[in-house]
Amino acid sequence: MKIEDVDFFYLSMPEVTTAADGSQDALLVRVSAGGLVGWGECEAAPLPSIAAFVCPMSHGACRPVAASVLGASLESPADIASIAAKVAHDSMDLLQAAHTWSGIEMALWDLLGKKCEEPVWKLLGYRETAPKIPYASLLFADTPEETLERGRDALGRGFSAMKFGWGPIGTADIAADADQFRAAREGIGEDAHLMVDVGQIFGEDADAAAQRLGALEDAGATWLEEPFSGHAFEAYAVLSRVGSKVGIAGGEASHNVAMARHLMDFGKVGFIQIDCGRIGGIGPALEVAELASARGITYVNHTFTTHLALSASLQPYAGMADHRICEYPAQPSALAEAVTSTPLSRDANGEISAPDVPGLGITVDTVALAGYLVDTEIKVGGKLLYRTPALV
Amino acid sequence: MKIEDVDFFYLSMPEVTTAADGSQDALLVRVSAGGLVGWGECEAAPLPSIAAFVCPMSHGACRPVAASVLGASLESPADIASIAAKVAHDSMDLLQAAHTWSGIEMALWDLLGKKCEEPVWKLLGYRETAPKIPYASLLFADTPEETLERGRDALGRGFSAMKFGWGPIGTADIAADADQFRAAREGIGEDAHLMVDVGQIFGEDADAAAQRLGALEDAGATWLEEPFSGHAFEAYAVLSRVGSKVGIAGGEASHNVAMARHLMDFGKVGFIQIDCGRIGGIGPALEVAELASARGITYVNHTFTTHLALSASLQPYAGMADHRICEYPAQPSALAEAVTSTPLSRDANGEISAPDVPGLGITVDTVALAGYLVDTEIKVGGKLLYRTPALV
Repeated sequence: MKIEDVDFFYLSMPEVTTAADGSQDALLVRVSAGGLVGWGECEAAPLPSIAAFVCPMSHGACRPVAASVLGASLESPADIASIAAKVAHDSMDLLQAAHTWSGIEMALWDLLGKKCEEPVWKLLGYRETAPKIPYASLLFADTPEETLERGRDALGRGFSAMKFGWGPIGTADIAADADQFRAAREGIGEDAHLMVDVGQIFGEDADAAAQRLGALEDAGATWLEEPFSGHAFEAYAVLSRVGSKVGIAGGEASHNVAMARHLMDFGKVGFIQIDCGRIGGIGPALEVAELASARGITYVNHTFTTHLALSASLQPYAGMADHRICEYPAQPSALAEAVTSTPLSRDANGEISAPDVPGLGITVDTVALAGYLVDTEIKVGGKLLYRTPALV
Repeated sequence: MKIEDVDFFYLSMPEVTTAADGSQDALLVRVSAGGLVGWGECEAAPLPSIAAFVCPMSHGACRPVAASVLGASLESPADIASIAAKVAHDSMDLLQAAHTWSGIEMALWDLLGKKCEEPVWKLLGYRETAPKIPYASLLFADTPEETLERGRDALGRGFSAMKFGWGPIGTADIAADADQFRAAREGIGEDAHLMVDVGQIFGEDADAAAQRLGALEDAGATWLEEPFSGHAFEAYAVLSRVGSKVGIAGGEASHNVAMARHLMDFGKVGFIQIDCGRIGGIGPALEVAELASARGITYVNHTFTTHLALSASLQPYAGMADHRICEYPAQPSALAEAVTSTPLSRDANGEISAPDVPGLGITVDTVALAGYLVDTEIKVGGKLLYRTPALV
C-alpha cells in the first residue's frame, strides 16, 4: 500500500503555563493507507513540527518531511526504515524534521501492525512482552510540604515507584534541594523506588550536580536524571565517574540514535531514556534499546504525555525482561486523558505491558479530542500549505 | 536599549530545485532597538524557523524563541550571551530554535556594533583583522567535463582555491568519483588549492569514505569534507586515523558548541567548519574558533548563501592569522546577490577581510530584495501570529 494522507492535529489545553508539564499540548499524527489509519504523536512544539512537514523545499538537502513520506510504499518494517533514511538525508538541514518524523514513524508502525494484525512489538521481533514497573512521573512542588503530599498521593494510588522532576531544584542552594529530596522520600515511604529529574538545570557544570549526590544518596534515590544539557557528554562522564550509589540517567533530548549512543559511550550513563516522539520513532528507539542491552545499561522510556505515546514508547523494549521500569504519566492534563478511553491500566501486580492487540493498541477518541483542537492555518506565497483537517 | 522588534523576511528564488545550492532561498532577520536596526540570516528552512519564533508556548521548557528575545536588554556582548542561555534553556524542547536564534544573534551583534560604532570583530576582542584566502565554493557537475569547466571558470575569475561539493560523488563507484576529482584538479590547474565536499553521502560508513582517499590524494586535495552525518563522530575518528595526506573536515551541521567540540575531540577532524546561521550565531562560533585554535585544528567558516552571512561568518576568526582560508560563495543565486550592493570584494592579493566598519558592515538592499519576498501568514487559534512585515 502507498501512504495516502498524513494529517496533523494540534491540540492544546485552554491555558498553557510555564510548568514543565509536557502534556499541556500535543501534536497527533494520523496516517492513512490502504483503507487503514495509524496514529502517532510528536513530542515537540506543534507549530514548528507542522511547518517542517509542509514547508517549501529550500534546496536538495533541505526538503520538507512530506516529500519523503507521501506516496511512499508501506509493506514491511524495512519500508519504514527506508523512509527514515530518506528523511535523514533529504531533510538534513531542517533541524525540526526529527521531531516531525517521530510522530509519523509511530503512526506507520501502528498502521503496519493493523494491516498485519500483529502488535508492533511482534513486528519488532519480540515473541512476548515482559511486564514493566510503572513509575509515577510527578513534578516537584514549590515547597517540600507540597512535594511530600504529591508523593503520598501517588503512594495512595498504588504506585511503588515515583519520579519527581524540575520545580525549584538547582535554583537555590544545596540545603534547599536536600529538603525537597527528603520530603519526596518521606511522602512515598521507605520502600518505594525514588527517582529525581532536574531538567538540565546544571548546564555543563559537573561540580554543581556532584554536590547534590550526597543528599540524593541519603534519600535513597535510584537515579539523578538529566543534570546537564543533552549534548554535555563530558559533564555526564565526570559525574558518572564519581561512583555514587545514585545512577546517572539521561537521553530524552536525543533526536537520533547517535546522540543516545554517545551519551552511553562518552557520557557513561547507567540509564538511557528515550522519547520515541523525538528520536525518530520506534525503530531508532529499538536500536538504542539493543545498544543499551549490549552495554549493560538500563533502557527506560521517556513519556510525559498521552497513552498513545506511552504505548509507542513501550514497544522498543517490550520484550526485554531485564529492563523493568517505565515512565508513566501520573498527573496528565485533561487533554492527555481525553486521547483515549482505553488507557494502559496497571494489572493486579501494579505493572503494565505493551498491549497484545494489532498496532499500538490505542483507540484515539476523536470525539473527546475535538474540544482541544487548535485551528491552524499556514499560507506561503498565496498558497494554503496547511489548514487543520477534520478530526472526526 | 531594549529589543523592540524582530522581523523575519522569507525570500526565495521563483524556482527552487533539488540542487544542493543553499542560496535558493533565505531567511533574513531585522532586529530593532534604540532607533537602530541590525541584520542577520538564519541558515535553515524559513517557514519552520519563523514558526519557532512565533509558536505558542507548549510548556516551560518549550517556549517560542520570541519569549527570550523581545524586550530583553542589549547593552553589551554579555547581554547577547545571556539571551542565548535563556533560549537554550527555555526552548530546550524546540529543536528548530537553534536555527531561528542564529539569525537573531547575528543581528544583535550588528546592532550592538552600530551602537558602539565598532566592527563586530573588535567587540569580540580582536585588535585587527587578518586577511583570508577565499575559496570558491562550487558544486560538482553531473559529468567530469562540466566539472572541469566550472573549475576553469573559477580559475579565470582569479580564485586560487576551489571547493567542489555534492553532485554525483558517492552515488556511483569509486572510479567514477576519481574521474570527478581528476577533472576538478585539471580544471583549476596544478597550483590552486582543491577541497572536496561530499555532503554526508556515506552516512556512518567509514570504509566507503576511506576508499576514496587514494583518488583524493592523487588529485592533491587539501581536505575531504562532511563524509558522514553530523553526529557520526566514531566514523570521523576511524577515517582520521587512516592518516591520509587528505585532511578530514566537517562541522557545518553543529547546532551548538558541544557538537562542534565533539567532532574535534571524538571525531578528530583536522578542519572544523562552522555555520554561524546554525550554531547559534557569532558568539558560539567564536567559542569553537578558540577551542580549535587551542587544539591545533584549523577553523573555517561554512557559508553558501549571502554576503551578510559571509560577513557574520568571518567575525569569529577575523583576527586569527593562522586560520587562513574561508569559504566564499562563488555561484550565488540572483537572490543572494541582491542582498547587498556592497559585497565583500577580494583585494589586490585576491584575499578578503571582515569589514572595518561598525557592525557587520553590510548594507541590506531592501529595494532589490522586495521582488524575492514570499508572503507568509500563520494563524493559530484564530490569532494572526505572523504575517510578512514591510521590507522597505
